[in-house]
Amino acid sequence: MILADRLLTDCHVAAMTEGGAPYGAIEDAAILIQGGRIAWVGPRADLPVHKAVETDRLSGRWVTPGLIDCHTHLVFGGDRSGEFERRLEGATYEEIARGGGGIVSSVKATREASEDALYDSACKRLEGLKATGVTTVEIKSGYGLDHDSELKMLSVARRIGREAGVRVRTSYLGLHAVPPEHKGDRAAYVDKAVDQILPAAHAEGLVDAVDAYCEPIAFTTDEVARLFDKAEALGLPVKLHADQLSDGGGAALAARYHALSADHIEHTTEPGVQAMAEAGVVGVLLPGAFLMLRETKAPPVALLRQHGVRMAVATDCNPGTSPVASMTAALNLACVQFRLTPEEAIAGATRHAARALGLQDEVGTIEPGKAADLAVWDISRPAELCYWLGAPLLDRRYLAGQAAS
Amino acid sequence: MILADRLLTDCHVAAMTEGGAPYGAIEDAAILIQGGRIAWVGPRADLPVHKAVETDRLSGRWVTPGLIDCHTHLVFGGDRSGEFERRLEGATYEEIARGGGGIVSSVKATREASEDALYDSACKRLEGLKATGVTTVEIKSGYGLDHDSELKMLSVARRIGREAGVRVRTSYLGLHAVPPEHKGDRAAYVDKAVDQILPAAHAEGLVDAVDAYCEPIAFTTDEVARLFDKAEALGLPVKLHADQLSDGGGAALAARYHALSADHIEHTTEPGVQAMAEAGVVGVLLPGAFLMLRETKAPPVALLRQHGVRMAVATDCNPGTSPVASMTAALNLACVQFRLTPEEAIAGATRHAARALGLQDEVGTIEPGKAADLAVWDISRPAELCYWLGAPLLDRRYLAGQAAS
Ligand SMILES: [Zn+2]
Ligand SMILES: [Zn+2]
Repeated sequence: MILADRLLTDCHVAAMTEGGAPYGAIEDAAILIQGGRIAWVGPRADLPVHKAVETDRLSGRWVTPGLIDCHTHLVFGGDRSGEFERRLEGATYEEIARGGGGIVSSVKATREASEDALYDSACKRLEGLKATGVTTVEIKSGYGLDHDSELKMLSVARRIGREAGVRVRTSYLGLHAVPPEHKGDRAAYVDKAVDQILPAAHAEGLVDAVDAYCEPIAFTTDEVARLFDKAEALGLPVKLHADQLSDGGGAALAARYHALSADHIEHTTEPGVQAMAEAGVVGVLLPGAFLMLRETKAPPVALLRQHGVRMAVATDCNPGTSPVASMTAALNLACVQFRLTPEEAIAGATRHAARALGLQDEVGTIEPGKAADLAVWDISRPAELCYWLGAPLLDRRYLAGQAAS
Repeated sequence: MILADRLLTDCHVAAMTEGGAPYGAIEDAAILIQGGRIAWVGPRADLPVHKAVETDRLSGRWVTPGLIDCHTHLVFGGDRSGEFERRLEGATYEEIARGGGGIVSSVKATREASEDALYDSACKRLEGLKATGVTTVEIKSGYGLDHDSELKMLSVARRIGREAGVRVRTSYLGLHAVPPEHKGDRAAYVDKAVDQILPAAHAEGLVDAVDAYCEPIAFTTDEVARLFDKAEALGLPVKLHADQLSDGGGAALAARYHALSADHIEHTTEPGVQAMAEAGVVGVLLPGAFLMLRETKAPPVALLRQHGVRMAVATDCNPGTSPVASMTAALNLACVQFRLTPEEAIAGATRHAARALGLQDEVGTIEPGKAADLAVWDISRPAELCYWLGAPLLDRRYLAGQAAS
């Protein structure tokens, strides 16, 4: 006899487990939840003897793992819609930079914003993610770029995890850009970010992983390696914005440090892909930035498949290059632009996204023992999650077995 | 003394009127509504002496005209997510066609569906449009392709206009595709569509405009001209799917018949643009189909601007080439892909979209005498409507002065 807090029944399940039926699909299924975790999942006909406190009949809807957005910059001050508009009116990047635009404007607005203001604006964007089935979201720092502002961003991210109805994993992204006050002295900023800000944030329990932006316009592989050495010393996993605009060896660097993930990777070539495969690094694809930047070089999906690199999909929600606040939009764009199959894309927002956050034992599939983070959808087949753009498909979410608003 | 049913205050207004401030913007504005129409709009400081039954304080939000989606195929049976998936898994168009896929599958599903089923599934998609501020939607037939099924689609569209919280304009799109039973005898189908189905639908009051798909893979300019002659005889305005995949003289044909709009127009060249300008034909841009089909030839926006052709933006919501059910997604894609400015894009979803439906005296701007169809947004500037993808921005809608759910 299984005792359960909740029975979900009259539903189809896309368990997103590996190796079995496509999507790990179980038609006419049931799920037993106990203590916030999946106690049992299978065909309804096989439902074991049980006693459930509550029963939710789902009218033939589909249940997937709650979606996981494993790469966001959800917390930031201001927005850059004014810059978006000026560029469409013909202003050049240089003119916008001279007018105080670009990432510097987000840094300024983030530094000036209170924790409450940052929390409120992030929660507004989070509504878009939750409305598209997200139950876990990764949130990076990187618009503070000084001690207090980076810790402020990470504290807001933690508060979102406590109060806003999603699980949160934080990443310290101090090496996102050189802050304006260090323009003439980047080495001093790298020292500070590595030796002071990261350890301080870590000491306050604000850091789940360490990230960096490795690109000629941002930080070099040597600078990133310094940061990653420190992360290793602190026992923190790493991840990397790699090879977005050029093949700078970012993916290989990530592999060398057994990173959780290498993200963007549009320009990664075969040696980098091979290194990722050998080190078990997840490749995180960010189709929103690809769209907004009008990139033409897609990530090497065929190579990633060939070498067995797990692919995740995320919104990259950020004010400059991906003002995307919908996980299903990211799925659609990953299929349309990068030619992922719907099953690959959904695995990229569940099982593989969990691994990109080091949470593969906790969330990302519907299996006994995993957290009962679930999304229920008004669809007739899982591929609909990738097919529609902007159609409201979510019926409800469960977070740790509780109905979540 | 103005008597009003409702006063909207503590808001900014983007009236989208022509020629004045960008967006027709009025900061710190007020709107008086009487009998479902705008009675007065202006700076709150100039508010005339009035007596309002209700007052809605909008906490500094922005008010725009309710958005107008002037090109949709919202009513259809089934969906094509399975085909979407098979194509991403590598199936060719031919394999899908052989398996009964393509538009034929939508025709089959639409013919088999009851009016209630068509209504319910269209309303689900409509939720996405309403959640993104739409108050008027154009709906085409064209998946029935026989007398009863075309009239069924148009009846469902009319029911949506009566019951679903939006204004609806219908278009008869009998010349959308040659139905399977007429494969060997397309002339007979054109005869039937022109001489029997259109007059019958018109006699039942189901047709606001007549549309056709003019393309080598669909109908020739001669066939369309036959249809348009009949529309003219019946006193119905026309519009045209023109030059989407090739420059087939569609825009010029539309201009010859003083069409309300020529839609798609990716491949229209300067003579066609010039003809549209002279005839006052609105150019309707459909960036969702452009994205989903991975087109590379954008509509000739510079030429359209140069010749003063009004540009509208629509979702083209349809199961095959644009499963897009978000008007703000269409705005974002129009800016990102076609380089419209946010002001152009929003005019394209309000003032110019109204003209594409012949409703320019009724809706599309916030001016005294126009219907009080309004969208209220949680944004700090109008450009945000185009900047975000998937963020929930709508606070509420008003339809004819009434709060609409
Ligand atoms: Zn990023
Ligand atoms: Zn169309």
